[in-house]
Amino acid sequence: MNTSRPLRIAMAGLGTVGGGVAEALAARAGELASRGGRALELVSVFARDRKKARKKELANIPWADDLAAMAKSDADVVVELIGGENGAALSLVEASLRAKKHVVTANKALLASHGTKLAALAEQNGVALKFEAAAAGGIPVVKALRESLIAHGVDAVRGILNGTCNYILTQMEATGRSFEDVLADAQKLGYAEADPELDVGGGDTAHKLSLLAGLAFGIAPDLKNITTQGIRHITPEDIRFAREFGYRIKLLGVARATPHGIDQRVQPAMVRLGTPLADVDGVFNAVRADAGAAGPFFFEGRGAGEAPTASAVVADLVDIARGSIGPVFGRPASALKAVSPAPPEARTSAFYLRFKVLDLPGVLADIARQLARCEVSIESMIQRGRGHGEAVSIVMITHECPQAAVERALNAIEGSDKVIGQPCMIPMEAG
Amino acid sequence: MNTSRPLRIAMAGLGTVGGGVAEALAARAGELASRGGRALELVSVFARDRKKARKKELANIPWADDLAAMAKSDADVVVELIGGENGAALSLVEASLRAKKHVVTANKALLASHGTKLAALAEQNGVALKFEAAAAGGIPVVKALRESLIAHGVDAVRGILNGTCNYILTQMEATGRSFEDVLADAQKLGYAEADPELDVGGGDTAHKLSLLAGLAFGIAPDLKNITTQGIRHITPEDIRFAREFGYRIKLLGVARATPHGIDQRVQPAMVRLGTPLADVDGVFNAVRADAGAAGPFFFEGRGAGEAPTASAVVADLVDIARGSIGPVFGRPASALKAVSPAPPEARTSAFYLRFKVLDLPGVLADIARQLARCEVSIESMIQRGRGHGEAVSIVMITHECPQAAVERALNAIEGSDKVIGQPCMIPMEAG
Repeated sequence: MNTSRPLRIAMAGLGTVGGGVAEALAARAGELASRGGRALELVSVFARDRKKARKKELANIPWADDLAAMAKSDADVVVELIGGENGAALSLVEASLRAKKHVVTANKALLASHGTKLAALAEQNGVALKFEAAAAGGIPVVKALRESLIAHGVDAVRGILNGTCNYILTQMEATGRSFEDVLADAQKLGYAEADPELDVGGGDTAHKLSLLAGLAFGIAPDLKNITTQGIRHITPEDIRFAREFGYRIKLLGVARATPHGIDQRVQPAMVRLGTPLADVDGVFNAVRADAGAAGPFFFEGRGAGEAPTASAVVADLVDIARGSIGPVFGRPASALKAVSPAPPEARTSAFYLRFKVLDLPGVLADIARQLARCEVSIESMIQRGRGHGEAVSIVMITHECPQAAVERALNAIEGSDKVIGQPCMIPMEAG
Repeated sequence: MNTSRPLRIAMAGLGTVGGGVAEALAARAGELASRGGRALELVSVFARDRKKARKKELANIPWADDLAAMAKSDADVVVELIGGENGAALSLVEASLRAKKHVVTANKALLASHGTKLAALAEQNGVALKFEAAAAGGIPVVKALRESLIAHGVDAVRGILNGTCNYILTQMEATGRSFEDVLADAQKLGYAEADPELDVGGGDTAHKLSLLAGLAFGIAPDLKNITTQGIRHITPEDIRFAREFGYRIKLLGVARATPHGIDQRVQPAMVRLGTPLADVDGVFNAVRADAGAAGPFFFEGRGAGEAPTASAVVADLVDIARGSIGPVFGRPASALKAVSPAPPEARTSAFYLRFKVLDLPGVLADIARQLARCEVSIESMIQRGRGHGEAVSIVMITHECPQAAVERALNAIEGSDKVIGQPCMIPMEAG
């Protein structure tokens, strides 16, 4: 790569983030050239709708004929901000890498599904595929896992990776209102999509977790290895009980090395109050990485939005300008291990359990007996409300035990005619 | 640089950190080679005392004749872990850079005094001078400021950069004991040096702050621009009052862009409870960087000790193995601006003020009059203890105002014969 002439950048997808990238490249051209050792020049752009109103920094940039033309152009780097797991984004990235263009993308869905294959393609063609913006917005945690926390390995990564979910949980705690009410407000405020399922169902967190796990453990990103649960079933009552026990509920992506393999899951978890992850409020994201003897590291910042995401894209571009290429997931793509889902025995923790029961004699004894039969022991218990024959909540924290044992007990308990609906089970996680 | 053969590493200084580096290079050789694209090989070591007992990983590494020989050897990289601002460390680093060897160092004192000159020397010779371990131990904040938080500039960096001070302040709060008592215990436990002045006097924090400010603002590191105050004057009473007002006292290094220039200081500060910096306990370090529209970022981890520091050194070595060189402070050394200390008007904040006074009629009125005369207005006040003619404490929080105005008022108040000793003034800082 000739590093004396400007780095020529083509960008596809000109929404909020694309506008932010164009703005930062223009506003801080001198500074970025000084850092990159060469100018960074936006030479070509493309989006579906050419007529849409856009940032003034995009007004005079030549428009590519189409994405195929962009991949074949004389740009050095293609920035993919189209989004989506397949389709146009995948075609553009593949064609660009084949044409020996570096690629910078914010597309977690694409990389979660095709990351290993695209990494191999980038490495075969001697170009970079960078994705700092895909995992926790502006937080430089992709770089930290890829380049910094490498001398002692990583035992576990836990992250609050979806601002929509964290905003909803924070608001549910602050207002005592239900998931549905808070979601509706978040949609009005633009903090949640009209179709919120990818966020509140945990899928977006799973996409990001697959990338962090790939970087941390040298495994091929694979959504099939991630058990995913969203936050729809969390009630204001769970949040209040959590607080009483000294915890806060957060939707976490967790990837952890266990003697049985890498356990990866997305799940609401109880995080002890006063720990860094418990204190991450609103739309912020955060990642805790346990790096062996080097100890836990914690990173927090904005996980989405124009400036934070543009910040990550621009940092990747400057890396490329400086010639810092390196393997996509830190190790050569060929070294990324394909793994299977961890078996059930990989999951042990303490658990929060909530049962809605009819207040009848013997109901607590029934529950306790089933738990004991499965060797789940109780650390503390709260029973609230009294009214013979009426519905009351019984809430417990277990000692550390296998999740499979708790599930066996819950299956048996669910069958009781004194128990209403499905019990709620939330694991405790280090924060 | 030929990147197909191993990266040949020479290391001077074989204490705790050096042992940790040798151990990590040996224990994770395959993993690091995979990440660096080549093997990392420790080929030469040196320390003052050859007879000292050391880690087994150092046993069979050839010993250099002396430091001059190491600088002239066929190593690709010299790791400087000798320490000290001048003397052997400076000579080794200069000679190694001149001999076109990359240098990795954990030496904050050296870089705080000679950083710009050494950066220029490295860049002239086309080699790297990396120092991740010099600023906040294992936390990859040097890399984050150098390579990641660059698209929107940085307005302010605030850090807890000295684990000894943070441990002492945490223990003072937990036990209610005095600075001297807690320091003596910390010395026994090995958390404080026999001569603790560099730590508790704030000098070590100033060294590190000068490097973070250089990276964040593109200025030449210069200790003369940093106003430094340590923690010796902090009393258990201050810590209790801070808590009552909803704050915690932390020794912070702060560098902030103001309309009057870059204000740099090391000073105990009041940080609001519940903010990330306030919650950093014990020997942990943390940095908050305000990156314009991309918002605040927060990084926390272990700031010292064998594994965290070795982790940072090894990450720098793998960067070099991969060929990621780049300018030492993110921009070319010639672009680093030499600045002057910010003038007094650059410093405005709210302040905590504590006066020890004789409980006599009119004393509060006298203090209030002097503050009003200097246009310092009071937001809240606590007066504790009552006993005519006895010593009591009056504690206040001011509204935001110039530090110079507070100092004028305090000078006048100190002259009063009803005021005992020197008033204590601690600024409030965002956490």
